[in-house]
Amino acid sequence: MHILITGAAGMIGSKLTKRLAKDGTLGGTPIDKVTLVDVVAPPEPEKASFEVETLAADLAGTGVAASLIPARPDVIFHLAAIVSGEAEADFEKGYRVNLDGTRRLFDAVQAFSNHYMPRVVFTSSIAVFGAPFPDAIPDDFHHTPLTSYGTQKAIGELLLSDYTRRGFMDGVGIRLPTICVRPGKPNKAASGFFSNIIREPLAGKEAVLPVSEDVRHWHSSPRSAVNFLIHAATLDGKKVGPRRNLTMPGLSVTVGEQIAALRKVAGDKVASRIRPEPDETIMRIVEGWPRNFAPERALALGFRTESSFEEIIQIHIKEEMGGEFVA
Amino acid sequence: MHILITGAAGMIGSKLTKRLAKDGTLGGTPIDKVTLVDVVAPPEPEKASFEVETLAADLAGTGVAASLIPARPDVIFHLAAIVSGEAEADFEKGYRVNLDGTRRLFDAVQAFSNHYMPRVVFTSSIAVFGAPFPDAIPDDFHHTPLTSYGTQKAIGELLLSDYTRRGFMDGVGIRLPTICVRPGKPNKAASGFFSNIIREPLAGKEAVLPVSEDVRHWHSSPRSAVNFLIHAATLDGKKVGPRRNLTMPGLSVTVGEQIAALRKVAGDKVASRIRPEPDETIMRIVEGWPRNFAPERALALGFRTESSFEEIIQIHIKEEMGGEFVA
Repeated sequence: MHILITGAAGMIGSKLTKRLAKDGTLGGTPIDKVTLVDVVAPPEPEKASFEVETLAADLAGTGVAASLIPARPDVIFHLAAIVSGEAEADFEKGYRVNLDGTRRLFDAVQAFSNHYMPRVVFTSSIAVFGAPFPDAIPDDFHHTPLTSYGTQKAIGELLLSDYTRRGFMDGVGIRLPTICVRPGKPNKAASGFFSNIIREPLAGKEAVLPVSEDVRHWHSSPRSAVNFLIHAATLDGKKVGPRRNLTMPGLSVTVGEQIAALRKVAGDKVASRIRPEPDETIMRIVEGWPRNFAPERALALGFRTESSFEEIIQIHIKEEMGGEFVA
Repeated sequence: MHILITGAAGMIGSKLTKRLAKDGTLGGTPIDKVTLVDVVAPPEPEKASFEVETLAADLAGTGVAASLIPARPDVIFHLAAIVSGEAEADFEKGYRVNLDGTRRLFDAVQAFSNHYMPRVVFTSSIAVFGAPFPDAIPDDFHHTPLTSYGTQKAIGELLLSDYTRRGFMDGVGIRLPTICVRPGKPNKAASGFFSNIIREPLAGKEAVLPVSEDVRHWHSSPRSAVNFLIHAATLDGKKVGPRRNLTMPGLSVTVGEQIAALRKVAGDKVASRIRPEPDETIMRIVEGWPRNFAPERALALGFRTESSFEEIIQIHIKEEMGGEFVA
């Protein structure tokens, strides 16, 4: 089996690559080769049992996507995107990378569709939804994104469905919750604080909380994100049916509940490293974000995630901090 | 006031042009100039009080959309599209005309957005919805189109919302019901029979009915379509809010109710000119189509349509047949 990962140098892409290297198989089939693509050269995984090809290229560039498909990757994980903050700050770049890049990839698959039919897993986002919302957003709620990033992801979903319906590919789109705890340095996502307030205090550093503690949001761990991708790559497409895009399960918690979980897992001293510093801009952005979902279809299809925020914190401590934090 | 109409040679475009020529004003403001664009040169209206410019050009072609905007049309009616049947038969043409054409037009407005802010009225379609449906589709129902045409219209809606949110334009998207009775010759739309079974018998000709009489669908007259466009062009954008796309009101009737209305208006002999001839392909397509809506937002914003199918037939007889039909 040959696997192609776009956006492979990103946080989720590199975790997925590590997981594939560890498993050596996908859905029970041995992996022969993994092709990793990103705008910067993705690092090769250590100790992979399969061939690894890395490529630094812009998927939205002429001919780039088309060059990747003749090798017939059986599974394509299309993760490449610029994040919400950047897509909002740079209108043209957002549409070029997130819309044109996706379309060029799908068109490259379409152009080759007489020869084969790959499973294409597309990472969409809960940013396709925009306020006002019902208490728990159902699977049939409309897409009225309030950001260009959400717009671009919603368009990607529509293309994925139509190209799948036409038999050009076998697509599954998964709307990821906000990934928490995001490791490493903050990126340009306005949602960064949801992770900062856990990751930084655990590392002995102060973290700024720009919103009030009653802000509710929808989370899952990086480990769950990788599990979602693997499950989306291997599940029976017939069971998905014509509606190819799925809201992934998550955990609906308030910032106050996040902090209480941190206190429970790591103690008062760690939790006291969170410093409230209200930021009107971030508060306004976050107001338009979803708070809770009823992801019935994904649950019925076997997608699973964490059931408590303590578990999310413990995963971070185990997987990113070698099991130890700064008390 | 300067008005630009794309797709001006089409059925709705030419009726809109006639109406503007008759009114001489839009929303109380005198019209100075109307620019009519289509792939074939649109006919000029008779007796217009304003300057008329016609242009035969492909909106998806390089530089075409960009050439139309520096004249700063105050209102842009973006009607240009290929219909569902053609977009389904020709994948590339559908995406080029319906998606790229729309995006190029919106991008041309965006590139000029430091200079002015036009009202852009975009004709979307109920084809953005795909079965299964609730009994009456609410305004917050998701878009899962089952055709490429519906996909392209749904993408146009998303772009319109985002470009409006960013302040590049003042967009209003209207999801037109199936227009009935469509005058003239059949086009490639699979929905053609809804009009054929009224128009042809009234003209003394036989019409083929390819589906069963219990098929229910959502209709409004060409006159209503023009009224929707005029209302969308002149209503207060602030009242629309951030959700810029609206399902237009319509009339939910079965084919049997259409035939009963024809019998009531024109008599048994006319109604007997309908010949059932089941067509599996059309039946399968129609199964995925919406049957009924609860278009609360559009009604609250003052959009109105016919309240009986008899009225729809009478409008056709009056406006297209000079008040007389072949009994």
